[in-house]
Amino acid sequence: MKTRAAVAVAAGKPLEILEVDLDGPREGEVLVEIKATGICHTDEFTLSGADPEGLFPAILGHEGAGVVVDVGKGVTSVKKGDHVIPLYTPECRQCPSCLSRKTNLCTAIRATQGQGLMPDPEIALAKVNPDAPFDKICYIGCGVTTGIRAVINTAKVEQGANAVVFGLGGIGLNVIQGLKLAGADMIIGVDQNNDKKPWGEKFGMTHFVNPKEIDGDVVPHLVNMTKRGADQIGGADYTFDCTGSTKVMCQALEASHRGWGKSVVIGVAGAGQEISTRPFQLVTGRTWMGTAFGGARGRTDVPKIVDWYMDGKIQIDPMITHTLKLEDINKGFDLMHEGKSIRSVVVY
Amino acid sequence: MKTRAAVAVAAGKPLEILEVDLDGPREGEVLVEIKATGICHTDEFTLSGADPEGLFPAILGHEGAGVVVDVGKGVTSVKKGDHVIPLYTPECRQCPSCLSRKTNLCTAIRATQGQGLMPDPEIALAKVNPDAPFDKICYIGCGVTTGIRAVINTAKVEQGANAVVFGLGGIGLNVIQGLKLAGADMIIGVDQNNDKKPWGEKFGMTHFVNPKEIDGDVVPHLVNMTKRGADQIGGADYTFDCTGSTKVMCQALEASHRGWGKSVVIGVAGAGQEISTRPFQLVTGRTWMGTAFGGARGRTDVPKIVDWYMDGKIQIDPMITHTLKLEDINKGFDLMHEGKSIRSVVVY
Repeated sequence: MKTRAAVAVAAGKPLEILEVDLDGPREGEVLVEIKATGICHTDEFTLSGADPEGLFPAILGHEGAGVVVDVGKGVTSVKKGDHVIPLYTPECRQCPSCLSRKTNLCTAIRATQGQGLMPDPEIALAKVNPDAPFDKICYIGCGVTTGIRAVINTAKVEQGANAVVFGLGGIGLNVIQGLKLAGADMIIGVDQNNDKKPWGEKFGMTHFVNPKEIDGDVVPHLVNMTKRGADQIGGADYTFDCTGSTKVMCQALEASHRGWGKSVVIGVAGAGQEISTRPFQLVTGRTWMGTAFGGARGRTDVPKIVDWYMDGKIQIDPMITHTLKLEDINKGFDLMHEGKSIRSVVVY
Repeated sequence: MKTRAAVAVAAGKPLEILEVDLDGPREGEVLVEIKATGICHTDEFTLSGADPEGLFPAILGHEGAGVVVDVGKGVTSVKKGDHVIPLYTPECRQCPSCLSRKTNLCTAIRATQGQGLMPDPEIALAKVNPDAPFDKICYIGCGVTTGIRAVINTAKVEQGANAVVFGLGGIGLNVIQGLKLAGADMIIGVDQNNDKKPWGEKFGMTHFVNPKEIDGDVVPHLVNMTKRGADQIGGADYTFDCTGSTKVMCQALEASHRGWGKSVVIGVAGAGQEISTRPFQLVTGRTWMGTAFGGARGRTDVPKIVDWYMDGKIQIDPMITHTLKLEDINKGFDLMHEGKSIRSVVVY
């Protein structure tokens, strides 16, 4: 069959709307009609050419929602008409990683994942509540889940903790939302753009720091802000990098608390870039960790997050600042570059 | 009063046996007659001048055991005649760190700790079983506890795990002993000195790797050795750096398992040295952490480890390869440099 798609023809070039050939579903595959797709910074990262796993030409988009229109032979977990969110991290429930209960990084289809391809089999689809609107829940396919579950699954933030979130974009705001859910006391947002302050506050941020507007380095500033207890030692219980800047990742570690601070890398850094620190930071009790998809198991956790949204437990609507037609998809990247959007969603 | 001590007069110089003045115990202080002291690599590190917290002149030695001979006003937790192990990390049980239940890094006397001084007050003494021999249990004051508790407290190793230990010195062998206690399946020791192989085996090491004797880099070699499960992904569940080399610390992280590997820095690096890695290592599920004194709370955990030794649950005697008189203390450093000792103990 023929279908339309926005194709990344080469690194750094605008997407082109082209007619492409699409095969029907093979054995174990599912044909999904995508109804809406969020434009994530990782799409921009891949389109820029910086992503070592990026290939061209490619049809980008890993934050979608749609309807099953056909299933291949042997498919049992979804059927025609089901509403689904495609998963870039599948959940086969059979491989050593899935069975370990320690990670969400299913290894069933690693061969294609490292080559910039979305997975084909049915294990890469989360079946969700059919009443949920596609143009909102598509965001759960990446940003919402990554931010919220990084707080819950990876950092395991507890009631009363204090936290710093670096970067108040589409991930950072969801980290803030997750921290509020987890019952954090002090939620400090850090961003170089003052326009992000009301955004952070909308989702639970209690303090805002613009590193450009303080004297000196942001690390001692944050340590000072988080001093508490009789010994007045500062540092946040949890810090999150949502920028992809290796410099910020290191600041996030150093702004975490001596003895027990956990710092979580969420952002994706450019090829070849490294993070570094004095080992003293670790020996004195800080933990440096990272997360992919917030540690969420796609088929198990994504439907629950859709339910949280439908029950009003989390907010998504305010973050979808722009809804665009497929023809206008490049405008979504422009809005991102200009810092004018939190999330643009393309509807078909 | 007058007493004898081996004094580090200047960086890089042999210790000198001098008569020194010693005040009686002030309020809250305890006078301990040291009966035996282990010579740790950290003593060598400080003596070399590389330790940013090292001051000269200094009386080194942080791995002692002795008898309380006098107590100052207000001391209640120990009395004359008690057998004790002095703690370089105290446990006041009152400060926010002690009360957090998340760290052993008591902050009650931070002011003196950062200046190369042993703490003065009674909170820095663990009262231990008086039947235990000083010339063995002094080692519990640092190396034994650091190694064993890093496995139990910091890494929280579980039954059936596999692990890699870099550096089979006085800490590494105790990490191996801790891994055996924890029920690890595969315990790989890594050392450039083949003489360490039988030492590792004596305490539970199951495999030995000499990085000088393999083709190529040690990381893929270790990843290959630890492949298991249907997807044949390698990497150890837990890795431990017991070398102090920043290069080895990075190798240890990268040799840990995608998705859940934990890498623990135990060794102390030189001033200004940094560790670095691609953030991808963290985002794909590895955790980089460190430990001081194995996360042990001195007054609570050290007496238990003395009991473990007395009950035969752990071994110490074979690791004490040399017992020296105070006059021969410099020989202990020579034996360490020559790689001939695991632990030398000085008795008074």
